[in-house]
Amino acid sequence: MMQRPGIKEVAKKAGVSISTVSRVLNNSAPVSEELEKRVKKAIEELGYYPSSIAKGLRKGRTGTIGFILPDITNPFFANIVRGAEDYLRKKGYNLILCNSDQDRKQETELLKILISKHIDGLLFTGTGSSNPLLVEKIRKGLKVVFLDRIFEEINSSYVIVDNKIGMNLLLDYLIDVGHRNFIFINGNKETFSAKIRYEVFAERARTEKLEFKHYFTEFSYDAGYKKAKRLKGLPDVILCGNDLIAYGVIEALEEKGYKVPEDVSVTGFDDIPFSKHFKPPLTTVYQPMYEMGRKSAKLLLEIIEEKKVSNKGIVLLPKLVIRESTKEMRR
Amino acid sequence: MMQRPGIKEVAKKAGVSISTVSRVLNNSAPVSEELEKRVKKAIEELGYYPSSIAKGLRKGRTGTIGFILPDITNPFFANIVRGAEDYLRKKGYNLILCNSDQDRKQETELLKILISKHIDGLLFTGTGSSNPLLVEKIRKGLKVVFLDRIFEEINSSYVIVDNKIGMNLLLDYLIDVGHRNFIFINGNKETFSAKIRYEVFAERARTEKLEFKHYFTEFSYDAGYKKAKRLKGLPDVILCGNDLIAYGVIEALEEKGYKVPEDVSVTGFDDIPFSKHFKPPLTTVYQPMYEMGRKSAKLLLEIIEEKKVSNKGIVLLPKLVIRESTKEMRR
Repeated sequence: MMQRPGIKEVAKKAGVSISTVSRVLNNSAPVSEELEKRVKKAIEELGYYPSSIAKGLRKGRTGTIGFILPDITNPFFANIVRGAEDYLRKKGYNLILCNSDQDRKQETELLKILISKHIDGLLFTGTGSSNPLLVEKIRKGLKVVFLDRIFEEINSSYVIVDNKIGMNLLLDYLIDVGHRNFIFINGNKETFSAKIRYEVFAERARTEKLEFKHYFTEFSYDAGYKKAKRLKGLPDVILCGNDLIAYGVIEALEEKGYKVPEDVSVTGFDDIPFSKHFKPPLTTVYQPMYEMGRKSAKLLLEIIEEKKVSNKGIVLLPKLVIRESTKEMRR
Repeated sequence: MMQRPGIKEVAKKAGVSISTVSRVLNNSAPVSEELEKRVKKAIEELGYYPSSIAKGLRKGRTGTIGFILPDITNPFFANIVRGAEDYLRKKGYNLILCNSDQDRKQETELLKILISKHIDGLLFTGTGSSNPLLVEKIRKGLKVVFLDRIFEEINSSYVIVDNKIGMNLLLDYLIDVGHRNFIFINGNKETFSAKIRYEVFAERARTEKLEFKHYFTEFSYDAGYKKAKRLKGLPDVILCGNDLIAYGVIEALEEKGYKVPEDVSVTGFDDIPFSKHFKPPLTTVYQPMYEMGRKSAKLLLEIIEEKKVSNKGIVLLPKLVIRESTKEMRR
């Protein structure tokens, strides 16, 4: 565990009493300008953090939060990280990131490393539907907030987006403008988000009597590209598990000489920052990525600082974003 | 420091001698199929890493590499990370990432944390032209490979792309098709890459008698957007410090009612994976991101494993990529 200077060291260095330092930190009572200057100078020179981190250290915390995520090259996660990081920094915590690369073994390995490095808590977006080591560690008291994807077997705090609403908004629109024949190129079979989107889709397909094929692949550009390369015949619309899959699908379709949306509509999921400028601009479901990151960091600190004892789930709302990769069907 | 099982534990678990385990690991002498199976089973059950990590542990290593980078939301860095991670994993090392968010204070803080967590070595892309703590730690023996950006004050190993060649390729083309009036919206003033690109540009502008304005901003979408929003009057071409700046510039130009490249050409730098699909597809300078990550990881492990003692600089070559965000000028 790292050593950080405390309020005592600041008082000593500034040549003032601890209560003077405390008054400066908390603005709780007037202090002369000169004393305030000396205290602030000492704080800066010592690299002392006021506020939560100081409180944390008194209880043996390290001021470090871990974040295991499945794909650092997906801007969806990069923007979640930014939201989490902005919040944590303001509170005096630092974030260390580990990329599992959608590999369960790797995820377990990274989890071991983070635990060995004394993190105060963990933000976690899993690659599959469980991870026995993580479940065990949570039961033993590891403080975790699940992000975007939850494990069904354990009751834990989480921040997710309502996938049901997102999928239904998208399907309402597509059905409304005349799409009847669907191919759904979905993400990783084991993930909560891919599973729930498939369930919503299958249910709608049944009640609306849609024709469809569904494939689980991976939440990546390459997976979309490869799957679309092998497709024979085109549906009205190719639904993709996320924006990256959609980009890969569009690339493959273009290489095969098809035009989007003239020959086939394509949709994504996430609305990563580039999707607006993609060619063609992508019809997709916006997920509040930055907000997810921020809210999960806030929730985790509440748990660490023991303001929350029971688990809490936060569900954010997605939005449908209609752009130019889909068209109205003429029938 | 984390505990990992060693070759002794494997031998014990498999009920064989240490030399048998060693023979299996190194394929150095024939071992019966049955013994090999037992050893491999023990390795798997214990989570023991053969090869370099085992050698590392004998010397008190942790198997963990740190990477401090300036902007996790920039796909340029995400793809460098992927290259580094793929290599490190194959060699039994894990990577922990820290995002400085282009903030020098934060960078120092993260450096302290990584050092306190006993990393074996550090991949480093700095936010400015120096960092006193890092320089001190390198002098005291911290193993570091600089990536994309170097510090001029200290002799260290590095992997960079030849910015001079990249900039000259781009300028050769732009001048050749008739651009004479330039605005250069560059990245962070303190970074090696922004500085050297500016120097090459200023020198060419002088010898070719180009009209130009130059601005240092930040390597981000927002910086490009804000700067372009405030521009009065258009040049022939807006040169951008990286692709993200170019995206922001194009967005702002479109909002102001201008068309790219009809009203003004715009260029990027990096060729992040989305730039091909951007609307309009971006003329830019490709940097071999994945390769930079891979080569820097390889170099760092050579240093850690003491195969290299003297510092080494690797310079990779960029490529000009001409797409649709630039046009030939009619004069």
